[in-house]
Amino acid sequence: MFFVFEGLDGAGKSTQIRLLAEALREATGDDSTRQVITCRDPGSTPAGEAIRALLLDPAAKIGMMAEMLLYMSARAQLVEEVIRPALDGGNVVISDRFLLSNVVYQGHAGGLSVEEIWRIGRIATKNLQPRLTFVLDLPANESDKRIDRPRDRLESRGEAFRLSVRDGFLREAAVDPENIFVVDGSQPIEEVHAEIKTAALACL
Amino acid sequence: MFFVFEGLDGAGKSTQIRLLAEALREATGDDSTRQVITCRDPGSTPAGEAIRALLLDPAAKIGMMAEMLLYMSARAQLVEEVIRPALDGGNVVISDRFLLSNVVYQGHAGGLSVEEIWRIGRIATKNLQPRLTFVLDLPANESDKRIDRPRDRLESRGEAFRLSVRDGFLREAAVDPENIFVVDGSQPIEEVHAEIKTAALACL
Repeated sequence: MFFVFEGLDGAGKSTQIRLLAEALREATGDDSTRQVITCRDPGSTPAGEAIRALLLDPAAKIGMMAEMLLYMSARAQLVEEVIRPALDGGNVVISDRFLLSNVVYQGHAGGLSVEEIWRIGRIATKNLQPRLTFVLDLPANESDKRIDRPRDRLESRGEAFRLSVRDGFLREAAVDPENIFVVDGSQPIEEVHAEIKTAALACL
Repeated sequence: MFFVFEGLDGAGKSTQIRLLAEALREATGDDSTRQVITCRDPGSTPAGEAIRALLLDPAAKIGMMAEMLLYMSARAQLVEEVIRPALDGGNVVISDRFLLSNVVYQGHAGGLSVEEIWRIGRIATKNLQPRLTFVLDLPANESDKRIDRPRDRLESRGEAFRLSVRDGFLREAAVDPENIFVVDGSQPIEEVHAEIKTAALACL
């Protein structure tokens, strides 16, 4: 079972992933035969973390197309080395971001073809699709206020970019409501978690 | 005008690129308005060189799919930052490797779908195609003997891999002889150069 969390930085993904992982461990009786594994995309492999460092470097000059392909590369390695083996072993995987981020950030907000990103993504992931993607939705200016540290290369993009990102997530969710579940991230943490937990448990 | 050199490591690409660049500079009267620019793929941009270092690191664990996508990312940046602006300015560009290397190394020799690599490559390069690609052909064991330094991650692949690479280049050339020109790299350097120079000048 493969779950993904998406949303603007500052929307609360890390907190909600931790809470869902705990809830699923309780619900499934986490043991050596069936575990709940969390990962982040890009990252969670040595090659993926090296790519992540390159992507977030504020000094790096990387065009939108090259950026999108770096994410794809990190994701291909993550699927091959971590996610696919874990799923094949019957485990639950929760990923902080996945292909939808590329579609939204470099496609809807970045101006690349959304269709081409989906197409490359299907090849890169060998068509691995999440059972459910949770989009933590927040007004763009609200998510910005929640980031209380120096901004990296991607976070330093402006308000208009964040508005396009939020809009992109909502548009993709409108097209595919069966697989993309939008949660109001401005609610209290426990209420956000309760919605997510209910939807995730219904998938098990 | 965009030329590409391909072939196994040790086939003589660097030497032949230098000789062709010199010949074209003489032929075109290289000046500030029309220059002959050389580059290498992956590389020739800050992001591309960082990606190249990751690809060649003997300690890096990178699957075939992630590897192919890293090359694509470096190439996208190279096209956007170097090759396309140079061509738009009326210059000649000679690249040490390009998309065909991906098709052959990760496709024919590496087992990925050749069709999918071409498809991603057309997107990554925004369909930029070389006017002519020179494949310096050598028996696989001959190219190996010519490398007189510690092998990087890619060069350390074995004899069977090099055989598949050579075969892949010849197969692609057979399909597209108008655009891929195979040169017998076992000839003396000056004879190889003479063949290449004649073909390149005919394109100008």
